[in-house]
This record gives sequence, structure tokens and C-alpha cells, in this order.
Amino acid sequence: MIKIKGLYFDSKLKYSENISKPVPGAGEALIEIKLASVCNTDLEIIKGYKSFQGILGHEFVGIVREAETENLKGKRVVGDINIGCNQCSMCYKGLPNHCTNRKILGMSDKNGAFADYITLPEKNLYIVPDNVTDYEAVLAEPLAAALQIPELCHIKPTDKVVVLGDGKLGYLITQVLANTACDLKVVGKHSNKLKRFERYSKVALINDLEEAACYDMVVDSTGNEQGLKLAQKLVKPRGTIVLKSTYSSVAAFNPSDWVVNEINIVGSRCGPLDGALRLLAKKYIDVENILDNPCSLKHYKAVLFSKQDSKPVFDLTKDSV
Amino acid sequence: MIKIKGLYFDSKLKYSENISKPVPGAGEALIEIKLASVCNTDLEIIKGYKSFQGILGHEFVGIVREAETENLKGKRVVGDINIGCNQCSMCYKGLPNHCTNRKILGMSDKNGAFADYITLPEKNLYIVPDNVTDYEAVLAEPLAAALQIPELCHIKPTDKVVVLGDGKLGYLITQVLANTACDLKVVGKHSNKLKRFERYSKVALINDLEEAACYDMVVDSTGNEQGLKLAQKLVKPRGTIVLKSTYSSVAAFNPSDWVVNEINIVGSRCGPLDGALRLLAKKYIDVENILDNPCSLKHYKAVLFSKQDSKPVFDLTKDSV
Repeated sequence: MIKIKGLYFDSKLKYSENISKPVPGAGEALIEIKLASVCNTDLEIIKGYKSFQGILGHEFVGIVREAETENLKGKRVVGDINIGCNQCSMCYKGLPNHCTNRKILGMSDKNGAFADYITLPEKNLYIVPDNVTDYEAVLAEPLAAALQIPELCHIKPTDKVVVLGDGKLGYLITQVLANTACDLKVVGKHSNKLKRFERYSKVALINDLEEAACYDMVVDSTGNEQGLKLAQKLVKPRGTIVLKSTYSSVAAFNPSDWVVNEINIVGSRCGPLDGALRLLAKKYIDVENILDNPCSLKHYKAVLFSKQDSKPVFDLTKDSV
Repeated sequence: MIKIKGLYFDSKLKYSENISKPVPGAGEALIEIKLASVCNTDLEIIKGYKSFQGILGHEFVGIVREAETENLKGKRVVGDINIGCNQCSMCYKGLPNHCTNRKILGMSDKNGAFADYITLPEKNLYIVPDNVTDYEAVLAEPLAAALQIPELCHIKPTDKVVVLGDGKLGYLITQVLANTACDLKVVGKHSNKLKRFERYSKVALINDLEEAACYDMVVDSTGNEQGLKLAQKLVKPRGTIVLKSTYSSVAAFNPSDWVVNEINIVGSRCGPLDGALRLLAKKYIDVENILDNPCSLKHYKAVLFSKQDSKPVFDLTKDSV
């Protein structure tokens, strides 16, 4: 059995060079990972959000090495991380992302991309256009998550919108929303991080923010439960709060405020990878400084828990087993 | 000064026959109350929801006794309970119900309808069609609140919908939703109360309910924080939870569930009185047994806190001062 390297989570995180190379099932392709980046959800899983055992990682770009479909072989791809059962009512409605029996790459019943190889159904794969770099392609998954906001909500050029959170997802969301011509502001905790948002949006430090209840839409990408609390203060009556953060903690709310002000709360998760690749191919998205310098998997400790502003990314071609 | 009777709340509820008759302001009419019914929100205010001082009551039917508009005089009317400032951006957008400076009849800065007379802006008034009885008309306000659900949400004939709560508002909501031809179920705690829902909907006792995550829409009209918790279990991924309950307590939630399942939560409050009157005039709504036998204001204690299934209603023409 060929052994590969990977970052395995089993209530503790372990690096191993003794993982069996995965074997594609029916309809699946084998993908050799080039780059795999770290999402906040990975860190939440390590903290106890979801009870996953297996190889972490769901943001990747790689090369198809084995496939039933001949012309997929050798192609550079990104992939939808949700694997539906193809048999339930959600799959039947074209919503495999919400299949209740779904497997999720690096999160639920499916080994993820912090490893040399993964398998995924061929229909989950999207061929990356040649002019999109690996560095850009690995961000297709979080960019798609940002695009899920306009996928679920109608954002008008006359809307007043605020994004909470000056992190990596916040930066992609801000760029996506700026494209709608809406009146946009980003609120964060770090003046140094907010700097690069200025090209796309007004910016404000959270402590300087005096506004209340004046936004048509508030997008929470803070990654913690304070986001919804602040969103509630900022959203206009009849406005929309978009939730993008998943975390393990709970918080107390009185939903009566949502009733009285007729607030619309929209949970939003994974989005359209094809749309993400279109924006990346058109060079509509600035990806500079979103990612750290690529690091080998073996040295994950140095980057995974660093308080860097940029997102850790693993280069699987380094330190080959 | 002419004195009138009324039910006044000032951290305690008091009946008085020594209240000054209100004087209409500019653009306002003086309305003599015939019937005024009790809403769950009134009981929540008495428990401490909102810090209101004044005469309670916002569901009424009455006769216009003074008005600037000549042909309003003598007309039987119901009224929109929200009084906008006419100057803010919400009023400008045609949403006086969400004016941040609004007064609310019997709830905020405006004496309510548990009294012989109220004043309201003429533009808040809707003339009651002759074939609508007083008993029906006093329910126009809660029926309008039920109609706010289809006002805010698109309900399809193929949708699977469940209403939580077998109370009076739940009964009006059920009738409104049954009109959409959706696949409807009502879940309640009381088999005796659920009986009358059977004409419009499937019914189930809450303890017999074994379903999970299979509803396109869940409407919470339970009046307490358990409603949202149950709604979360019953709603399908990408489904909608409509909140109709206002209450003073808070509850702990983890909004990550809403993100992962891309749930849409819609707060919904007051609705279109004109639509309510259209349904009542067409006799599309069964109002039988929703209200108690009308009681005089003086005997409020006997009905206000009784555990009757029906809704207390005051007949202001009884026991005139």
C-alpha cells in the first residue's frame, strides 16, 4: 500500500507520513493536491466544532490523476466539498449541499485536502482556467462562499451594506459586494488590516462606530457570536442580516427584536465555484496577501496557530514522502 | 373636563373612571370604542415586555366621533396601531410601521383602546364594510398580523408548512395559510384546541411529533422562546422560519446551525388591515369562538388572567361612566 503524508485530526492534530493513499470509489476521481489553505472552520473543528475524525482541509487546488472521464485526467481542478447521497429529496431538488446524508471534505465522513491525495466525485470538480494561478485557485472555495451572499440575497445598488470582520473571508466578501455598486462599509478591529479594504469600501474601527439601525444589510463574518449581536444593532427595520460565521459557542438572544423590526436573517454557507472561477479568471479579485507563504505540511505547527493576518497555506509538493 | 373609563398600566394594571377624554391632534380623529380585544402582547407588557405607561389595548373597532375629514364622521373603523413621525427615512419609504420615532397604540407613547375613546391619525383608519360584524372587525388587527406572513414571504402551493401554536393567532394564521393551498400542519399542546384546526389543516400534538427538518416553512406562534427551538428542528435546509411571537425572555442559540443549513429567519409583526377587511367581508375567515363573551372593562380581572381558550374582549358600551 502506498503511503502518503497528511494532517490527521482525532481530538488531537497529528502529522503522519503513514497514511494510506485513498482509492477512488465509483464516479470518483483521484486528485493530487498542490496547495491547500486553512479556513477558520478548520480551526473551529480543532476547537471542538463538529466531531470529525480524519484528515482536515477543504480548500484546495490539485491535479486529477485518475478519473473515469478520460478528459479530466491531468486537469487542474478545484472541488465542491459537499458530497450528496443522490437519493434524498434535497439531492433530487438539486441541493446536494444540503443532503442530510452528505459527506463533507475534511469535515464529515470524508478525508480532506491536508494530504497528498484526495478523492472526490467527478461531478464535484471544476477545471481551473489556465490564467488562474494556483494561489488564486486555492481561494476559489472561500470566494464561492462570499458569492453565496448574492446567490441567496438581492443586493441593490442603492442598498447600504456593512461587513463585520476584517479577516480573509471579510476581504473576499467586501470585493464581491463592492461589485454590486452598493454603499459599502467594513467594520473591523484592526486598522492595519482595514487598510487594504479602503480600495473597495469605506472602513471603520469597531470602537469608532456610532451608527445604529441604518443598514439594509449586515454581513457577519466575524467568526464569533459577537457578530450577530452587533449586526442586530446595525440593521435597519426590514433589513437583512447575513450570517457567514460558524463557531462552537452559543449566545443568548431575544428574538422579539427580530419580530418587532421584521428582520430577515439569512444563513449562508458554501457557494458557486463556477462563479468564483469566472471572477478569478477575469482578475476581478485581489488575492494578494490573503495567503501566507506556502509551508510544507510537516511544519504545520509554525503556521496553523500563528496570529498572522494572512491565511496559512500548505504546499503539498514540498517535503515529498 | 369630561372623564372616561379606561384600563391603565403603570407597572400595575388599574381600572379608572377618572381618565380625561383624549383630544385629537392635527390630522387625528376621535374614535369611540365599541369592542377592544386582548392580545398576548398586552399580557407580555403587563409582565414587563416594553416599559409602557398608559392605557393598554390595540385591537379595536369603534365609531369616528370627530374628524377633519367630513365623511369619516360616524363611520365604523379599525385602525393601524403604528403612528409614524412622517419625517424619517422609514416614513419616507412608506414604512411608518418601522419609523424609529413611532408611537404605538396602547404600547408606546399613545394611550390605547381599553378605554371609551382613543385618538388616531385619520390616515391610520380603515372603514369597516357593513357586512363585517363588530365581533369580526375587532379581529382585523390580529388577522392582519397573520396576513403579514404572505406579505413578507412567498408561500407556494407545493410548500410543506407547519404552524407552531394552537392559540388564537395560530388559528388565524392557519386559515390564512390554508388559502395558499400549501401542505399544512398545526402543532399544539391541546387536543381540544386543535379540534377546530382540522377543517383547515392536518394537526398533531407536540408530544406525538416525530418529524425533523422536513418543512419548507415553520411559523412560530407559540408566544415563547421554545417556539424557535422547535422550529429549528423542523425546518428543512434552505427553509424559512417565520417568527410571530414577542416575549420578554431570552434564550440561547447557536446561529451556526442557521449558517450550515442556510436557514432564513423572518420576523413578522403588524400587517395589512385592508387585506384583513377584504377576507372578513368575503366571510373567508371563521372567527367563531376566538373571542370570549364581551365583558365590561370594570370586570377585567375576571377575564384578563383566566386560562380560557378564547380571547378576552371588552365591550366599552357596557357600564358607561
